[in-house]
Amino acid sequence: MAYKSDSEIASEAAKLPIRDVAAKLGIAVEDMLPYGHDKAKISRQFIDGLTDRPSGKLVLVTAINPTPAGEGKTTTTVGLGDALNRIGKRACICIREASLGPNFGMKGGAAGGGYAQVIPMEDMNLHFTGDFHAITSAHNLLAAMVDNHIYWGNEQQIDLRRVVWRRVVDMNDRALRQITCSLGGVTNGFPRETGFDITVASEVMAILCLATDLDDLGRRLGDMIVAYRRDRTPVYCRDIKAEGAMTVLLKDAMQPNLVQTLEHNPAFVHGGPFANIAHGCNSVIATTTALKLADYVVTEAGFGADLGAEKFFDIKCRKAGLKPDVAVIVATVRALKMNGGVAKADLADENVEALRKGCANLGRHIANMKSFGVPVVVAVNHFAGDTEAEIQALQDYAKARGVEAILCRHWADGSEGAVDLAQKVVQIAESGGAEFAPLYPDDLSLFAKIETIAKRIYYADAVLADTAIRNQLKEWEDQGYGHLPICMAKTQYSFTTDPDRRGAPEGHSVPIREVRLAAGAGFVVVICGEIMTMPGLPRQPAAEAIGLNVAREVVGLF
Amino acid sequence: MAYKSDSEIASEAAKLPIRDVAAKLGIAVEDMLPYGHDKAKISRQFIDGLTDRPSGKLVLVTAINPTPAGEGKTTTTVGLGDALNRIGKRACICIREASLGPNFGMKGGAAGGGYAQVIPMEDMNLHFTGDFHAITSAHNLLAAMVDNHIYWGNEQQIDLRRVVWRRVVDMNDRALRQITCSLGGVTNGFPRETGFDITVASEVMAILCLATDLDDLGRRLGDMIVAYRRDRTPVYCRDIKAEGAMTVLLKDAMQPNLVQTLEHNPAFVHGGPFANIAHGCNSVIATTTALKLADYVVTEAGFGADLGAEKFFDIKCRKAGLKPDVAVIVATVRALKMNGGVAKADLADENVEALRKGCANLGRHIANMKSFGVPVVVAVNHFAGDTEAEIQALQDYAKARGVEAILCRHWADGSEGAVDLAQKVVQIAESGGAEFAPLYPDDLSLFAKIETIAKRIYYADAVLADTAIRNQLKEWEDQGYGHLPICMAKTQYSFTTDPDRRGAPEGHSVPIREVRLAAGAGFVVVICGEIMTMPGLPRQPAAEAIGLNVAREVVGLF
Repeated sequence: MAYKSDSEIASEAAKLPIRDVAAKLGIAVEDMLPYGHDKAKISRQFIDGLTDRPSGKLVLVTAINPTPAGEGKTTTTVGLGDALNRIGKRACICIREASLGPNFGMKGGAAGGGYAQVIPMEDMNLHFTGDFHAITSAHNLLAAMVDNHIYWGNEQQIDLRRVVWRRVVDMNDRALRQITCSLGGVTNGFPRETGFDITVASEVMAILCLATDLDDLGRRLGDMIVAYRRDRTPVYCRDIKAEGAMTVLLKDAMQPNLVQTLEHNPAFVHGGPFANIAHGCNSVIATTTALKLADYVVTEAGFGADLGAEKFFDIKCRKAGLKPDVAVIVATVRALKMNGGVAKADLADENVEALRKGCANLGRHIANMKSFGVPVVVAVNHFAGDTEAEIQALQDYAKARGVEAILCRHWADGSEGAVDLAQKVVQIAESGGAEFAPLYPDDLSLFAKIETIAKRIYYADAVLADTAIRNQLKEWEDQGYGHLPICMAKTQYSFTTDPDRRGAPEGHSVPIREVRLAAGAGFVVVICGEIMTMPGLPRQPAAEAIGLNVAREVVGLF
Repeated sequence: MAYKSDSEIASEAAKLPIRDVAAKLGIAVEDMLPYGHDKAKISRQFIDGLTDRPSGKLVLVTAINPTPAGEGKTTTTVGLGDALNRIGKRACICIREASLGPNFGMKGGAAGGGYAQVIPMEDMNLHFTGDFHAITSAHNLLAAMVDNHIYWGNEQQIDLRRVVWRRVVDMNDRALRQITCSLGGVTNGFPRETGFDITVASEVMAILCLATDLDDLGRRLGDMIVAYRRDRTPVYCRDIKAEGAMTVLLKDAMQPNLVQTLEHNPAFVHGGPFANIAHGCNSVIATTTALKLADYVVTEAGFGADLGAEKFFDIKCRKAGLKPDVAVIVATVRALKMNGGVAKADLADENVEALRKGCANLGRHIANMKSFGVPVVVAVNHFAGDTEAEIQALQDYAKARGVEAILCRHWADGSEGAVDLAQKVVQIAESGGAEFAPLYPDDLSLFAKIETIAKRIYYADAVLADTAIRNQLKEWEDQGYGHLPICMAKTQYSFTTDPDRRGAPEGHSVPIREVRLAAGAGFVVVICGEIMTMPGLPRQPAAEAIGLNVAREVVGLF
């Protein structure tokens, strides 16, 4: 049997006019701003009017540690959303927007896969509704204003060597990672070293995704640290008076984008912060808006549950007051076998023993989710080669931990393939068993927060940090930032900081290389390993094959 | 009497739903792509289907040399368009889009003024429909691919010192004018000097505005020169294989944007190339589309007629096969008095003598327009302080040259104030007196083309160019670029290269400082003076006062 590719399925799909999709959530034409006929933003006035409505149930889709075998977290998010609609619940999914730049390096991707996708795929991989361009503009306006401030006399006494606000571009461009700017003489300013990151790494992106409304957005933008003086005191965005203009540039980008699944169910696709140096979830405003409009909101977090779900709970839910009702952990037989030591080339062979061994990874994520007070169900995303014995072993493993592992075939069958999962999610959510609480309290010291995550989520023995890092954390506490949550930046492939240690390692230590304060976003980034904030293009960039065919359709993008 | 500001008038205006504006041009809802309820792009399929329709009349609005007194070229374009509709003609205006970056330096501007404006003003000064962001992305993708090509082995043998493709950002950022990129070691590439221009200065912008369709767009993008080898042979965009992906990024930006005037008449606002290093007109595709949909299309060109109209005729009309029917030269009593030697502070005093003297500037533009075979009418854009004697003197001057100078009050009265002008334009257009021909033939040598413009349009005696420049022009002729038209880049304030020489100077010489080949846009840029392609922000940028008020309305942008 020949399968269709994701892009074939997506491009062949009939789309409902976006106004009809909006109508499913009770959004009238005048309450949305159309972008073409298949995309729309939801008006601010409409969102402001939802405050007093009750909120629906919140379902987080997360996963075991990712492997090259693939897990299908977004696919399951879409499949579950469609299945909830299929069994009569008003459900809406909330996922992140794609970054433009990387599509010209590797091929662009679908949102979901098979018969569980969000469309229009092409627009979502290109400019979409312009949100990321607005973020790029706002970020770079601040950068221009900082250098302009220095140029015209530097009233704030910024130390030229300590300007921490870089520039951004939504492009994979390694040549811009490190530059010297303001060359060419008096009229161009004071030369200094700086560089560009990719737009999704911008603190403005993290802020857009955490802000509850435009006032909160402006406040957070003003709180960002752009530089330090010689006496090490911070210079804030508001000292440069840029936050008002930045807010104006971002006002449309703050409005969630509505699109649809292949089954014409509503999907908010909004925001896309990095999952390492930021928190990696779609916007708070999209999630809270969806909760006011739907009985069920299905959302996901970046990477595996150790990073993605932990940050979703400890940063997004803590700050936005969200209370997740169910956590769905996506696992595949293939990925668990890899976690059990099987090489990618051997995945086609049945190997129940390796699967059982790899289940330790799943088991730890189950325990972790429960430690947040969130009930768990495992979604086994079915692949064609999975054997009955393997699936049974996986289900037995979960059952022994008091959790159901439900086989899902939404990739092949759409919503029909995820009905069992949807029913289980509804049963758990309506039983009201969730008692969500973040992992650590706000008033714990910053270092103790890091230790709590490392020991309780990663099962590490110790956190290693030199004196400079510990002092930096203390200094921030003295400056009033001690209440902030931690945003861990480490490899997504392991509970440890070593990407090759799959399964459920323990007894390791977590070395901290660097800490950064995102004072506007409101978290302390703890970097444990190499973090690339500006990717490069490969030897043969995907862009070389992208173009229009004779029918003027896009080719090569997927 | 207290006048309302342009932004007050614009923000108080009732807007027609854009679908109703489109309907006036016979564009159905399914043939447009809405952006909100007050902006839309016209679908490619619809435009492709218009080929066999007859074209309406084309009216160019141009002006005398600008002075600080202001002329009101766009205001007159809008007022005339509205007035043509008022007298029963189906008319559409075509103007340029505004650049985002400069709005954060000086206040953003209206499109038009008083009761002759295009709306929505706020969106048009912000992200609008994202065209400029798309151009920025396409431009910078090519830049990233050039450095990536060098990084992975430099198969094309690009000379690192001769990469001519810079990067762009739609921001006034002097710190980026000159940079050293690719610093930081092996993984970041080969350090070299480069810089950023503002997006409107991109050759991609000029190409988008000259391309007739997506095929032509892709071909022109491929033709762009990005670098030279050590042997001085050019490396083209197509050698880097970027033109396909760039075309994909630009495919929506190629579709004209429809908005409306205060009187709800259709306006295409599309494209915005620099008026110095580029040709300074709105897009060919918007103009040709409008001509298929309307009886009258009123468009404008940047700067005064010596630069703007000449380039409109010799570049845009020549290349797109457009045949203008009427040229409207906008003049004001105030600006003519300044051309006659009056200081700005003294403009309020009646001064018929200075006005008569200044009319020499108008007279020369009248003669120039006629030399293109285009009949002329002068629009006297009325200002409150103008005296009857001054207006009479101006009208007499024009009459002596066989041209009517018509007093217009569209700024104060909207279309009603420009009915006389509209009737005259119709009379001229319907008499069929136009016999448009470009100033010089394609097969004239490049230097002879420059001399023709300098002598016949600027009334100069000589063109001064050193051997290096003359050799460069010859080299391009040998390479097959001799057929290209010339794009002059000189001060807009004078027929000469000295901005202070107002009126109608003669006997001067035109010194050429630099020539540049825009092989994709299809013209040779001749630079006579300082051309700034990346503005800076002033000491107190407008951005500092921009923000949202308590009602979350934008303040400080205008």
